[in-house]
Amino acid sequence: METGNMEAISAQRLYEALVAISRKTAVFASVLQLLEWDQETMMPEGASDIRAEQNTAMAALVHEHKTSSKWKKSLASLIDLETGAIKGEGLRDEQKAALFWWRRDFLQDSALPVSFVEEFTETTSKAMLVWREARKQSNFPLFKPHLQAIVDLCRKKADLLGYKNHPYDALLDLYEPTLTTDEVSELFAPIPEAVKKLIHGQKIIDDSFLLQDYDKETQLFFCHTILKAIGYDFSKGRLDLSTHPFSSSIHPTDSRVTTRVQKGLMMSCLSAALHEGGHSLYEMGLPQGSWGTPLGASLSLGMHESQSRWWECYIGQSRSFWNHFFPQLQKVFPAQLGSVDLERFYKAINKVEPSPIRVEADEVTYPLHVILRFRLEKQLIEGTLDVANLPEAWNSLMEELLGITPENAAKGCLQDVHWSMGAFGYFPTYALGNMYAAAFFESFAKEHSDWEKKVASGELSFIRKWLSEHVFRHGRRYTSRELVERTTGEPFSAAPYLHYLKHKYGR
Amino acid sequence: METGNMEAISAQRLYEALVAISRKTAVFASVLQLLEWDQETMMPEGASDIRAEQNTAMAALVHEHKTSSKWKKSLASLIDLETGAIKGEGLRDEQKAALFWWRRDFLQDSALPVSFVEEFTETTSKAMLVWREARKQSNFPLFKPHLQAIVDLCRKKADLLGYKNHPYDALLDLYEPTLTTDEVSELFAPIPEAVKKLIHGQKIIDDSFLLQDYDKETQLFFCHTILKAIGYDFSKGRLDLSTHPFSSSIHPTDSRVTTRVQKGLMMSCLSAALHEGGHSLYEMGLPQGSWGTPLGASLSLGMHESQSRWWECYIGQSRSFWNHFFPQLQKVFPAQLGSVDLERFYKAINKVEPSPIRVEADEVTYPLHVILRFRLEKQLIEGTLDVANLPEAWNSLMEELLGITPENAAKGCLQDVHWSMGAFGYFPTYALGNMYAAAFFESFAKEHSDWEKKVASGELSFIRKWLSEHVFRHGRRYTSRELVERTTGEPFSAAPYLHYLKHKYGR
Repeated sequence: METGNMEAISAQRLYEALVAISRKTAVFASVLQLLEWDQETMMPEGASDIRAEQNTAMAALVHEHKTSSKWKKSLASLIDLETGAIKGEGLRDEQKAALFWWRRDFLQDSALPVSFVEEFTETTSKAMLVWREARKQSNFPLFKPHLQAIVDLCRKKADLLGYKNHPYDALLDLYEPTLTTDEVSELFAPIPEAVKKLIHGQKIIDDSFLLQDYDKETQLFFCHTILKAIGYDFSKGRLDLSTHPFSSSIHPTDSRVTTRVQKGLMMSCLSAALHEGGHSLYEMGLPQGSWGTPLGASLSLGMHESQSRWWECYIGQSRSFWNHFFPQLQKVFPAQLGSVDLERFYKAINKVEPSPIRVEADEVTYPLHVILRFRLEKQLIEGTLDVANLPEAWNSLMEELLGITPENAAKGCLQDVHWSMGAFGYFPTYALGNMYAAAFFESFAKEHSDWEKKVASGELSFIRKWLSEHVFRHGRRYTSRELVERTTGEPFSAAPYLHYLKHKYGR
Repeated sequence: METGNMEAISAQRLYEALVAISRKTAVFASVLQLLEWDQETMMPEGASDIRAEQNTAMAALVHEHKTSSKWKKSLASLIDLETGAIKGEGLRDEQKAALFWWRRDFLQDSALPVSFVEEFTETTSKAMLVWREARKQSNFPLFKPHLQAIVDLCRKKADLLGYKNHPYDALLDLYEPTLTTDEVSELFAPIPEAVKKLIHGQKIIDDSFLLQDYDKETQLFFCHTILKAIGYDFSKGRLDLSTHPFSSSIHPTDSRVTTRVQKGLMMSCLSAALHEGGHSLYEMGLPQGSWGTPLGASLSLGMHESQSRWWECYIGQSRSFWNHFFPQLQKVFPAQLGSVDLERFYKAINKVEPSPIRVEADEVTYPLHVILRFRLEKQLIEGTLDVANLPEAWNSLMEELLGITPENAAKGCLQDVHWSMGAFGYFPTYALGNMYAAAFFESFAKEHSDWEKKVASGELSFIRKWLSEHVFRHGRRYTSRELVERTTGEPFSAAPYLHYLKHKYGR
């Protein structure tokens, strides 16, 4: 046997050893996911203290495994941890991609000393409690010192993680790997003007029939119907209730979703089910054989959000989707919808109106809420905005972007939980998700020019198949932008997104 | 400070170190409990493979912690691992009791080499599958070689664990610590004759009204009612459905129960809820501050069973319990029970009739099923009974004890899952549970001579209070027999049990 071959075999063996260690860590991480799912859905309230202890123990265990010297040594046998140069001979391209991500994750996981993580956790735990109270009272000064401490810690975090140009790069990379602050700024740049124009063209729409009393059990029954229709596999998941809808990613064979149900908010219940169902289809579609390695994992928060928004908005708020499902919805809610026609329903669920609250925003104004937060976060982290001046900065930017001023801090800069959690860098992924979805959707609609006809007839399975082919099966084989470019043939930009919005909401 | 004091302080510190390590292990073990609860109640069926991997990883982690050199060293600082002599100065009695159990658990946990545990797991995993098929076909020869392998492994297990007199001692001690084979034989000795006499005196009772169709939701509603009444705290637990009813012991603040519900088996649903509720009351009543140490843990399987049978039989099949609850049951099931009077209902739920299946046996004949298994297990382990001759031995003993012969092996020696799991030594705990319960019950009834009047008026809280005082709060402070003697003032024997049965079922 030649030396090259010998080395290739040895590299494969080393790679397999990495897979085994990585998979073991993933098993423990998946247990933590189950604990968190249970906590939000099933756990008796009295168990919160022991659950906190269980979560902490499992998180510490996972962290130990991710940063262990055994793991480091194995990893370093195939990739130079300093330079990122691949060492193994004869590794396949996807294996090299896996090594790229393993190294990146390892460097991130081991960059923060335990003492820092503990300080961060303690500070944010306290801040979350204070934030809840501050929002209730609409009292920014109450939250201010805590936010200041968090901003300081996030700057320190950026320093510990390291960055080339901007400290925000390091934070952004935690959630949307390989994308920089400058790139995001550029991607977001054309959106405000384009969206503003769209907002001005909107008519006043009466959606009051959506806010009537809808039976809760029937709402849930309908969630099951549409989840099954989009391809959600109930033998590998389940639908439950929780205060905040979420999807769990325990394993491709165990990805559970939740929604929330209120009598007066029927569409919110269905939309949440589609949104979380979209997240779960991604998890269920990941290549199971590579589970526990980067090739069997989701790509980024933004890419995940693209899948949820795909089903929630691109399909779930389309005319053709409701062409098929509205008669069924009318049948189960005859009193509320019997006299409403499809067009009126379609317009009501796509109503556009600037409002101060992000989570209640429509598809058109949503990105402006994200851009606002991105700009403020960047300024806070780079130090060009003082925490003390946040409420004013928020309000003036809100006026500039959306033409409205929130009536108080609770409906302004205190509305989101993210900052109290220290999740600076997270918000951009919400808008990026919509933009990835739009780019994919353009290609999808070109390839399936009859998609609306098919969907209108209740045929949906080809959609999941397309997403599986172009997104799910690749895991973390490519970066998000590579994946978009690979599918669309175009560099990732805001163009498809703005085109989609104009096409749907223009005139 | 005097040397004695210094040593006492140092012993307290060492003890605290032990508590910290032990608690950490308990946290991981509690996570495993949650995984198992989820598996039986919520888990989507497609997730069974990854769940097996999660369970195995967590079980291995717990085992590593229980047998780690760090733990061994800490333990050895306060107790001699060979002799069991306490080393620390100034330790309190309950701390010495904790050390006794920690040592006993450590020696048991570390007695079995990993290779043996793996062989055992592999053999029993296969055997369980074959057993299911063999029972379906009523085909003992199919199961025979597997049972032979398990008996051989159990003998080996006994050797590895070590014993003084009888290899069965080592297996029994796994489930009912400190009780020996001879002691169990002696405790069981007077039962068969006494029970046989009782059986002969029974009248034929018509319980067909219990086997009508009962609405499932209403059955569950009633389970909630009686669970609340006995003191089950739904803020620290929940009731769900599973194929085989069970209770989980995650933590005193998280102890969940299940039942099963079939239209034609209403009492089975209620009894299971009371049975599992009894187990959970014990868990919920353990001293929370000592959780993760022997002083915050349940004593033995037999003691646990005493708590479930207490509520299922001693209270839940009493006339006074139904004096209060039967009118409520009639109200929710008027069609089925409207024309039935309390006395007829009471007799029907206490019907005595020898039958071949243990899990369907009444309170009187139940111990005979256990004694039969205990005798056969003992003979199999000591080698005086050949596996090949088991069916004949089963049938002739069944004839001797219960006066019936099962029509086939499925209803005979193939009926239980336990042997396929390798759980030799487990069965006696079922009968011991009834006997502990009877001993406690005698004292309870003496102390609360008006208990029937109170219960008949719906007042139940004093019962849990009594159990808490005499059982729950002690954790593993005493051995089972010590605990019984402490409460009753008499050495543990079959007398209270036989007295109870005679009083309730005699003429």
